[in-house]
Amino acid sequence: MPNTQQPYQHAHRESGQYDTIDAIVSPQNQLNILSKTEASRLLDASQGGLYTLFRCCALAVLNSGNTLDDGKELLERYPDFAIRVIQEERGIKLEVNGAPASAFVDGKMIHGISEHLFAVLRDVLFASSEQRLLSTDKTATPETITDAVFHMLRNAKVIRPKVDPNIIVCWGGHSISVGEYDYTKKVGYEMGLRGLDICTGCGPGAMKGPMKGATIGHAKQRLGVGRYIGITEPGIIAAEAPNPIVNELVIMPDIEKRLEAFVRTGHGIVVFPGGAGTAEEILYLLGILLHPDNRELPFPVVFTGPASAQSYFAQIDQFIATTLGAEAQSRYKIIMDDPAAVARYMVNGMSDVRAFRKKTDDAYYFNWQLKISPDFLQPFEPTHENMRDLQLQLDRPKHELAANLRRAFSGIVAGNVKDAGIRAIEKHGLFEICGDRSIMEPVDQLLSAFQEQGRMKLPGSTYTPCYRITH
Amino acid sequence: MPNTQQPYQHAHRESGQYDTIDAIVSPQNQLNILSKTEASRLLDASQGGLYTLFRCCALAVLNSGNTLDDGKELLERYPDFAIRVIQEERGIKLEVNGAPASAFVDGKMIHGISEHLFAVLRDVLFASSEQRLLSTDKTATPETITDAVFHMLRNAKVIRPKVDPNIIVCWGGHSISVGEYDYTKKVGYEMGLRGLDICTGCGPGAMKGPMKGATIGHAKQRLGVGRYIGITEPGIIAAEAPNPIVNELVIMPDIEKRLEAFVRTGHGIVVFPGGAGTAEEILYLLGILLHPDNRELPFPVVFTGPASAQSYFAQIDQFIATTLGAEAQSRYKIIMDDPAAVARYMVNGMSDVRAFRKKTDDAYYFNWQLKISPDFLQPFEPTHENMRDLQLQLDRPKHELAANLRRAFSGIVAGNVKDAGIRAIEKHGLFEICGDRSIMEPVDQLLSAFQEQGRMKLPGSTYTPCYRITH
Amino acid sequence: MPNTQQPYQHAHRESGQYDTIDAIVSPQNQLNILSKTEASRLLDASQGGLYTLFRCCALAVLNSGNTLDDGKELLERYPDFAIRVIQEERGIKLEVNGAPASAFVDGKMIHGISEHLFAVLRDVLFASSEQRLLSTDKTATPETITDAVFHMLRNAKVIRPKVDPNIIVCWGGHSISVGEYDYTKKVGYEMGLRGLDICTGCGPGAMKGPMKGATIGHAKQRLGVGRYIGITEPGIIAAEAPNPIVNELVIMPDIEKRLEAFVRTGHGIVVFPGGAGTAEEILYLLGILLHPDNRELPFPVVFTGPASAQSYFAQIDQFIATTLGAEAQSRYKIIMDDPAAVARYMVNGMSDVRAFRKKTDDAYYFNWQLKISPDFLQPFEPTHENMRDLQLQLDRPKHELAANLRRAFSGIVAGNVKDAGIRAIEKHGLFEICGDRSIMEPVDQLLSAFQEQGRMKLPGSTYTPCYRITH
Amino acid sequence: MPNTQQPYQHAHRESGQYDTIDAIVSPQNQLNILSKTEASRLLDASQGGLYTLFRCCALAVLNSGNTLDDGKELLERYPDFAIRVIQEERGIKLEVNGAPASAFVDGKMIHGISEHLFAVLRDVLFASSEQRLLSTDKTATPETITDAVFHMLRNAKVIRPKVDPNIIVCWGGHSISVGEYDYTKKVGYEMGLRGLDICTGCGPGAMKGPMKGATIGHAKQRLGVGRYIGITEPGIIAAEAPNPIVNELVIMPDIEKRLEAFVRTGHGIVVFPGGAGTAEEILYLLGILLHPDNRELPFPVVFTGPASAQSYFAQIDQFIATTLGAEAQSRYKIIMDDPAAVARYMVNGMSDVRAFRKKTDDAYYFNWQLKISPDFLQPFEPTHENMRDLQLQLDRPKHELAANLRRAFSGIVAGNVKDAGIRAIEKHGLFEICGDRSIMEPVDQLLSAFQEQGRMKLPGSTYTPCYRITH
Repeated sequence: MPNTQQPYQHAHRESGQYDTIDAIVSPQNQLNILSKTEASRLLDASQGGLYTLFRCCALAVLNSGNTLDDGKELLERYPDFAIRVIQEERGIKLEVNGAPASAFVDGKMIHGISEHLFAVLRDVLFASSEQRLLSTDKTATPETITDAVFHMLRNAKVIRPKVDPNIIVCWGGHSISVGEYDYTKKVGYEMGLRGLDICTGCGPGAMKGPMKGATIGHAKQRLGVGRYIGITEPGIIAAEAPNPIVNELVIMPDIEKRLEAFVRTGHGIVVFPGGAGTAEEILYLLGILLHPDNRELPFPVVFTGPASAQSYFAQIDQFIATTLGAEAQSRYKIIMDDPAAVARYMVNGMSDVRAFRKKTDDAYYFNWQLKISPDFLQPFEPTHENMRDLQLQLDRPKHELAANLRRAFSGIVAGNVKDAGIRAIEKHGLFEICGDRSIMEPVDQLLSAFQEQGRMKLPGSTYTPCYRITH
Repeated sequence: MPNTQQPYQHAHRESGQYDTIDAIVSPQNQLNILSKTEASRLLDASQGGLYTLFRCCALAVLNSGNTLDDGKELLERYPDFAIRVIQEERGIKLEVNGAPASAFVDGKMIHGISEHLFAVLRDVLFASSEQRLLSTDKTATPETITDAVFHMLRNAKVIRPKVDPNIIVCWGGHSISVGEYDYTKKVGYEMGLRGLDICTGCGPGAMKGPMKGATIGHAKQRLGVGRYIGITEPGIIAAEAPNPIVNELVIMPDIEKRLEAFVRTGHGIVVFPGGAGTAEEILYLLGILLHPDNRELPFPVVFTGPASAQSYFAQIDQFIATTLGAEAQSRYKIIMDDPAAVARYMVNGMSDVRAFRKKTDDAYYFNWQLKISPDFLQPFEPTHENMRDLQLQLDRPKHELAANLRRAFSGIVAGNVKDAGIRAIEKHGLFEICGDRSIMEPVDQLLSAFQEQGRMKLPGSTYTPCYRITH
Repeated sequence: MPNTQQPYQHAHRESGQYDTIDAIVSPQNQLNILSKTEASRLLDASQGGLYTLFRCCALAVLNSGNTLDDGKELLERYPDFAIRVIQEERGIKLEVNGAPASAFVDGKMIHGISEHLFAVLRDVLFASSEQRLLSTDKTATPETITDAVFHMLRNAKVIRPKVDPNIIVCWGGHSISVGEYDYTKKVGYEMGLRGLDICTGCGPGAMKGPMKGATIGHAKQRLGVGRYIGITEPGIIAAEAPNPIVNELVIMPDIEKRLEAFVRTGHGIVVFPGGAGTAEEILYLLGILLHPDNRELPFPVVFTGPASAQSYFAQIDQFIATTLGAEAQSRYKIIMDDPAAVARYMVNGMSDVRAFRKKTDDAYYFNWQLKISPDFLQPFEPTHENMRDLQLQLDRPKHELAANLRRAFSGIVAGNVKDAGIRAIEKHGLFEICGDRSIMEPVDQLLSAFQEQGRMKLPGSTYTPCYRITH
Repeated sequence: MPNTQQPYQHAHRESGQYDTIDAIVSPQNQLNILSKTEASRLLDASQGGLYTLFRCCALAVLNSGNTLDDGKELLERYPDFAIRVIQEERGIKLEVNGAPASAFVDGKMIHGISEHLFAVLRDVLFASSEQRLLSTDKTATPETITDAVFHMLRNAKVIRPKVDPNIIVCWGGHSISVGEYDYTKKVGYEMGLRGLDICTGCGPGAMKGPMKGATIGHAKQRLGVGRYIGITEPGIIAAEAPNPIVNELVIMPDIEKRLEAFVRTGHGIVVFPGGAGTAEEILYLLGILLHPDNRELPFPVVFTGPASAQSYFAQIDQFIATTLGAEAQSRYKIIMDDPAAVARYMVNGMSDVRAFRKKTDDAYYFNWQLKISPDFLQPFEPTHENMRDLQLQLDRPKHELAANLRRAFSGIVAGNVKDAGIRAIEKHGLFEICGDRSIMEPVDQLLSAFQEQGRMKLPGSTYTPCYRITH
């Protein structure tokens, strides 16, 4: 481990019950060779409006390994935590005060955590100081957004030329059952044994299991250190702190860019059981893959889980069959209770992806050809007006229908379980949705099933629709 | 992973309930560049008297990861298992038939297992074909034995020049409680965080936990792949198959050379709770360290365990105090329930070792200066005659007393629990030991305590001495 | 060598007497992972006003190894040479037509030449397309300029963190005598033996000899591939094409930024014999080192040559003593005819530089602290008006006097040997210089000596001043 | 460069006119991890009968770079030179006294020279101390000899698995004309450009030129450091000291094993002009390739030189045509004055070699399949008796005839130019050779032509046969 730390009187303090440490750390990654101007801009950014966001994300990664579901609680545990950019002749350093002691060994910050810390500095402050696209940009075109996603990934060295396609994105719930968690580890293990690398949202549950399994698989095959890519966003990083296995961390500005990063970086996707969030991700993915421009594009997708999750995926499959039809079904494969089969399917898929990219002169490291329509790039706010505008008829193009379904889904879940949503319903009455009953009924069935399986927590004990259909 | 395997019709067979596979694998390590003569000698060795031993060890590593306490059961599970050296123009290959299917992924042998397999070939057959010292050599001098130990370790690439001392040997029981096992993982983790590498006897329990913990520590510090050295012997490898983490495997010819390999390769030793076997190892170690020539030699030794193991080490400490005295006690430190403190103690110890070796122009990679008296190099057979010859008086030199105590201990355990020992007692009466009561009583107390703590399984429910003291 | 080239029908053509080849080459360095927008901007830049410059520089590096003093002649040799950026799905490629056949082996471009070619693309087109500072910017502040210099060097990977200071800049004439050339090789050899790397202006003569010598020194010490940094500018690259040893090529926009790149990248400077140009470089360097802010800054400078160059440096030393005084003399050391002594002096100097940078928290890879006053950053045009404005009195601050002397020197040389200068004198009469006779007479003596030594080619056979002194 | 040297008062002495240095150097290669026994054996060997040979070879490599045709003169220059193995706790060191100062930089031995020094220690002393086959073994079978050759090459790390065939052996004279030397550089350059590595006898002339050229070719293609293998023998190393480019040095015990090392390590052979010695090497090579067992074996051989060497190879070709016939001619290709064509021919040849070795499961790193009959393994002493026994009739198997021709050739040259030979002729009269006139006349013509071309220095001004033909 390169020694990147200055001598410093490490003050072990006890603020309430949690030990803290003060330290100065030297930058890693590109931040260790900054120009004077870049260093100044970074210093300015750290002292400006982004400080709160930066501090919060920094604290999250410093707390890595300690489970805490709640960002607010974390901030309360370390009320004196402060982080400061110091400009020196040669560049910058970071001073942290009141940081969780668990991030240190004998007074020196753990190297992997320091890597995460400088990933936060890079993606939250430096990217912004360099005028990269931020979450708040509303005028961005799809091209600009894709470019910004590419820039952030390249900055994070996730973009690597001359490597064959082997990155598998794993999606699924972050609070799944022990049986389901063990299953994600087994799938990760089988993929690791076959030389596949893992990319997830970098929190616990289905985001950690596959990485954990893959490390064993990689080690057994003597593959050296594998790639464990975590792609997160500021809004979620505190609640889903990057697990320590993650050795390439990227913090994208918002959920839309994060999803785009997943589908353009990953060469295949494995979906594990989750809740309504996972269902939304599936609709996002199918919406993209159903776009006519993507018809020829190989993109292996597997839905998988232990035998106990059989009904979960059966319902989702049924729902897709009913609403989006056979073509949508053809874009994924359901493999139950067979980790090795999942891994083999992905290995085969990688060959197809490689052949296609080679034929079309596309990069292996970024899926430039994948068409993502603007629908998927803009955040959706589930107001009564936005819900009313959704078009949910069976005769619409399937990729539009998928996009709208995803939104409807998102809105209905909000109306059922989220504070803002419940209150909006109380105030303005049920959402009005302009859609076919043959589409909306399956939505209800699906949500109802999630409730029964304990995958969604409703205020009451049963699911009741929070909308009515108009024409 | 380099592709080292030939296309071959992999026959998945089901022999009884266990899946097997046939395959041909290409050699790794130095066995991939053999001269014609070496290849022939190796072929001869594989067809000669060593075949049975070779087959048994090979099956053990191919079964790695599947727990089985018993080598005999393993052989019965795979009755058709066969392994054959094939000589080709360019060198050799290995053909395996009826091998456990778990050693393969999609018909190709897992790389790490194939490494272990070629370690067996190297240490069991090749070393012998090259006339290296074997277990059966009785005429060997201490110098010859040490030289042979060095050769086998160098062959296995365990000897590495220009690396600072950082190898910690971990000893302890292979069937310890869950709490004790978790504790060994934590100690390994804290050592890994501090850049220490691990060497063990490479089976389960206290031999696996520290390695498992260290992998996490190494990964968090981004130290690349750490060293997980397993040193075993043919007699034990089936029952204690190398766990898959081991990435440097050596099979020494017998227990004495294995112990010598531990103390000359390791730069420090951590002893976890175990049973009578662990107590024997402690006596072996103290016997060596008490030799007058080793007085100045720094050699950090820690006895450690969770709070629940407090009494175990208290008793051992008491036993040592009574029998071997304060100087013996000064050669180890007891640290209870504090993994980080153990790791810090070892880190400090490494500095001392480094400074001493530098000052005395000794190698970092092999402890040439450690004096091991011939007593410790010769196997001890607990016959009535050998037991009668032991001298166990307090006024003897402490290192001789330690050597004899180890033997007495070994004999008494045999008399209590081992088939051959019990029958010998039945036939010839109690062992006669020529020793001081003040030495033998503590032995009884210790064994009795082990029995109470469930660390030793006696035929009856209580411990009864199987010897009587003579003068 | 990574295979970076597409199959292509390589048309060996003979255009007049010079063989040419057509080919498509894939990018190296960062240009192989461009975003779509970057690729478009690069394409635009290549089709805009910079094309002529780009084509000319590209042809120069493709002709590397073939000596030609004259860029114009080169362009005439390959009249059909064309180069084109092609945008593909994954980024860009370069298509060259009518390129010198000597740049290829069996139809594939030599890897080192392709590196140089992409350095041209990066520095001439990409830097501009990314709005980096160009030669034409007149409004730039010193900070902006230094920042731009840093950016171009970092882009070119010349900036490397965590490497001890060891880059020696070598200056001197490009058309020196064989004896002087051999001497530069010997100095390079002795520096290479001591682990020093070389940076030059990357043409022939004193810019090639030290690199050539260093490769032998590095090889004998088994240092792997050394660093041979060439820093050039578009105006000179055709006449002084990068020699093939250069493995890090940077094309700075103009001479001032190129000089700044030398003094901020290099950790020491060796000056070999040259002509008036070398004298100007010496004045540039002293002007900077005499700045009060740089007084404490260690910066080892050696003037050296074979015995035959004794008088050359004696005259320069005398000139500096008379005009700039003892402090200026203290900033360099003259070592004649002793290559090993030069190298040893530099090795010692590196220790001082390292210690100073460490103490002041400055980077090893870029001399941020070196103060360069704006005088040295702006090009000087030797018009009658500008010459009249020069202040050349002994009582001025030495660093200003050095700056003005450099300009006067430059103007007088122009008035003597350059077309534009000679014609200006014919038209407007002698330059008027406001200076002390005790300063201007030494200037005359120096130039007169250069003429005698054949280091400067005057139209007549003797040197005559082209100015008169005013007060 | 790893620091492998102890502080030591380096006494620069001047013994007569040559500067010398005393130093202690630490071992490189495998000699840095010796067992105690190995170290003792090495110490013994260094103090025994091999000391003189060891000292002589050591001095030769320490004098590397300084040309001296004569080993005896070298020993006289450094009369006080001594070298001593020191045994320490950890292994050995070497102490040199009175060593040529040119082997050191600022008191530290140049790393490459220290590598050569430890190659001498390894091949001359260590190999013997480990009972490897020596020159003096007369009872060795062909298999034993080949095995010994393999062992020495493997020890020297010349044997490398998993590398495609690319080693080209270059033969030719060590005192050739400037034009021929430059040509060897150009051929080396073109081979280097195509990724081929070079192996020679490691002295000057045709043994140095190809390496020198290849370094430029490798550098231009950015291939990192290439392989420059020098295979020499104790009898010749002083006169033909390894040039500093050689980065893998092997000292074989005698000329026969050295030749075997060439033909089993090299994947192709380029023969440049030389004298009688080169002609002998050609006969050796053809003798082997003509063996019926080698008929199908691909082994690319090129005879090449500048236009000026046309007649040299025309005569050799004619000689081979007359004596050994068309099949012999089919085993080589003559390419005059076209370095690129030579390189391309070798590149194509490498594909054939690779395909053949793959098909026959032979190693890429050692030509196990090449049949060398015992004739070629035994030294030939040109006594009158041995000459009389030679059978030189056209109807003999061609490979035997080639072997005998090589011997006859060797004897006739000895009779013409070597002290011992000339005196034997004076004493016993002409050699009697039992051969066909149609074979012996071409021999005379060839030697006569060598004399005319200045490639052989005869005592008189013309060539006169020193034998007569019997039947």
